[in-house]
Amino acid sequence: MSELISALLAAGLEPATDPDVLAAHSVDHAGLVPAGRAAALVRARSTAEVSAAVAVCAELAVPVVPQGARTGLAGAATAVDGALLLDVSGMDRILEVDPVDRLAVVQPGVLNAAISQAAKESGLRYSPDPGSWQISTIGGNIATAAGGMCCVKYGTTPEYVLGLEVVLASGEVMRCGRRTAKGVAGYDLVRLFCGSEGTLGIITEATVKLSPVPAQRLTLAAVFATTADAGRAVTAIMAAGKQPSLLELIDNVHLRALEALRPMGLPTEAAALLLVAADTDPEAELIAIEALCAGAGATEVYRATDAEEADALLESRRNAYHAMEKLGTVLVDDVAVPRARLAEALDGVQAAAARHGVAIGVIAHAGDGNLHPNIIVHPEDPASLAAGRAAFDEILEMALAMGGTITGEHGVGMLKRDWLAREVDPVNLAVQRRLKAALDPLGILNPGKVLA
Amino acid sequence: MSELISALLAAGLEPATDPDVLAAHSVDHAGLVPAGRAAALVRARSTAEVSAAVAVCAELAVPVVPQGARTGLAGAATAVDGALLLDVSGMDRILEVDPVDRLAVVQPGVLNAAISQAAKESGLRYSPDPGSWQISTIGGNIATAAGGMCCVKYGTTPEYVLGLEVVLASGEVMRCGRRTAKGVAGYDLVRLFCGSEGTLGIITEATVKLSPVPAQRLTLAAVFATTADAGRAVTAIMAAGKQPSLLELIDNVHLRALEALRPMGLPTEAAALLLVAADTDPEAELIAIEALCAGAGATEVYRATDAEEADALLESRRNAYHAMEKLGTVLVDDVAVPRARLAEALDGVQAAAARHGVAIGVIAHAGDGNLHPNIIVHPEDPASLAAGRAAFDEILEMALAMGGTITGEHGVGMLKRDWLAREVDPVNLAVQRRLKAALDPLGILNPGKVLA
Repeated sequence: MSELISALLAAGLEPATDPDVLAAHSVDHAGLVPAGRAAALVRARSTAEVSAAVAVCAELAVPVVPQGARTGLAGAATAVDGALLLDVSGMDRILEVDPVDRLAVVQPGVLNAAISQAAKESGLRYSPDPGSWQISTIGGNIATAAGGMCCVKYGTTPEYVLGLEVVLASGEVMRCGRRTAKGVAGYDLVRLFCGSEGTLGIITEATVKLSPVPAQRLTLAAVFATTADAGRAVTAIMAAGKQPSLLELIDNVHLRALEALRPMGLPTEAAALLLVAADTDPEAELIAIEALCAGAGATEVYRATDAEEADALLESRRNAYHAMEKLGTVLVDDVAVPRARLAEALDGVQAAAARHGVAIGVIAHAGDGNLHPNIIVHPEDPASLAAGRAAFDEILEMALAMGGTITGEHGVGMLKRDWLAREVDPVNLAVQRRLKAALDPLGILNPGKVLA
Repeated sequence: MSELISALLAAGLEPATDPDVLAAHSVDHAGLVPAGRAAALVRARSTAEVSAAVAVCAELAVPVVPQGARTGLAGAATAVDGALLLDVSGMDRILEVDPVDRLAVVQPGVLNAAISQAAKESGLRYSPDPGSWQISTIGGNIATAAGGMCCVKYGTTPEYVLGLEVVLASGEVMRCGRRTAKGVAGYDLVRLFCGSEGTLGIITEATVKLSPVPAQRLTLAAVFATTADAGRAVTAIMAAGKQPSLLELIDNVHLRALEALRPMGLPTEAAALLLVAADTDPEAELIAIEALCAGAGATEVYRATDAEEADALLESRRNAYHAMEKLGTVLVDDVAVPRARLAEALDGVQAAAARHGVAIGVIAHAGDGNLHPNIIVHPEDPASLAAGRAAFDEILEMALAMGGTITGEHGVGMLKRDWLAREVDPVNLAVQRRLKAALDPLGILNPGKVLA
């Protein structure tokens, strides 16, 4: 029995070492990221167990890879050689919902959707809505600073995190943040852990903000013959001070894939479809947005007549990824550019697709300038994989050249760690390394993620 | 000539050493905080000058105290012995307003109010509105993570900071954050600098988020005979999912002081006045809030009939501090408690006032559970000062006992640095010290602020 296993058993933990179990737990939803060979898996059921496991790893200098539902798209939860996989998805209790302070206290393994479900009877919801909201955990959402469709109006996950309990690299347990609406006592440790992908500490409890459920939401779809027209519509909507609660774009490749998956009358000849929802004074807001879309050259604007129809429209957006999976293996890219350059970015992606001979469909959180180019590859064909990877990199390059970012919401993980130095300046990178060293001097927490 | 002065001159800077000038620049708006004796003052006009000044100080291990308008209330800008005062208030240019990406790029010395002024023609504003908004700088707002009246709906300063340029303790210049609506490349350095009160770096440029100006705002005032009734109203408003854009409380002591300053018919016998504004579907929102206030026992609810009358009501709130200054020197306290405990906190403050024989008036950002007990002292009388200080401490103690914080929005500075260890756990405090050491190994950046 290895030293690690003995020590974990001695600490009262129950490590799994079955190779099939380890293999199944060694990857997340990222493509292109090779998994290492883990040494063991511990399914923690309490903060004390997380603390004990990390303390063992600190003692033996063994890497720890924290895991939730492993729905991440950047390889942050991917195994590295010799690591302990520390799965907190079993810590899945909602500890409290407070309707006056509008907060919930939850364990890290609680599913995103479960929080809104629990808050519903108080007329509240947990706003952030990553695409994975029904299957991803709040711990992972926080660790990756997850985005979603509502961000254009409601912001991203970190804005909804008030307080955290974190197990540090030493195994010590720390609380940070607050329960009050405001509080500025000391450095903002909460935000430092948000998006740190398990490299600075492991989240074992979170206090998250809840918000009133909007009374009504109305939805429209606008069809555009060119990406330029669609881009102009987005720019017009944002420059006019409109506040859509959702502003999504589905490109031609996705429209065709969706229609092939399940015919529903989508405009398969269009360059792009914009989906727009509004939930504040929505009737007036959508009338204004409809006019702005028409002014930008929309060939058709279609208002959902009821909630069911609106849901069907949004469902097509949520199915976009699955529709593309019918075409091959999907490499999901994620970049953000200044809003005004959306059309240029869409065209740039198709130029890259043509140049490398790969199919790429783009869905975009258009209101945020956040594009997800979904690149189709056939992994059994090395040439296809190489072409997909080249297009992937070219898209990152393009986003940086436009003053954008290599990741709008999926994170760096292993997938883009070599790209981080292309985005931030050397002084910034050195500061990031100093923070990592200050909090994890042995480098045992999720090594090789975020920082190369 | 001292070594510091020679080195600053050699670096092309123009240090001031006149004792009167230094004395005038050695304090901010905090009471109770003794200023040290500064060695020199540099009024920086560019990032290069800030960098050069800090590099000199790093070389000579001289403390640097960054300063803006020195309107802070916690002594974060107060001089320490031998320090270089580094005033960036002269860096006051608005570099860009982008209406599509809804952002402004500004130098740190730009006044808060000037940003909204510049954004006005685009139909946008910079939302955060600390009480000092007309006289405080954005650099100071960010460095203190400033709050304000709109936070109950719109959040605090850090939520509006997209990117920063920062001069580090070495004099190196770093950029962090982004211009895009979303972005998660690496650790959230922006938020680490927000609220760090110049102890981790000096902000030399900021990219801040702008928001559409609400179309209409309506205001009401509700009068309560008891603090319990006022507290019940706040709880009812928040539990009902209402989203007031402002929810302020003025207590009896302040009502009387305001009426004494300028008679305007305020209810001087009331225990508390609530001021409530709404700017989303405001007519319906205020009708609902009015009913909730009445249900909680309001003796009178008064709707402002026009914008002018609404402004007059809010002006009384903004004058609350000045009205108290007529009664003596004001020690401004700042705590936040869970919303549901607002009435209990108000009563606790008055119990402390009675116990120590000092007058204390409370104004509160009631919707945030954020109280500002304004304690009247007469500094020429040591007994009065001691009593005021004892009440001040007792209020912090009370907030912590309620699960609240020692500072809702004013910050720690020198004023509350000894209290930080009472709020956060030892592991948290150790992490804060490690971050400080990682970014400022010589400890030259604003020493003695935030951390004791």
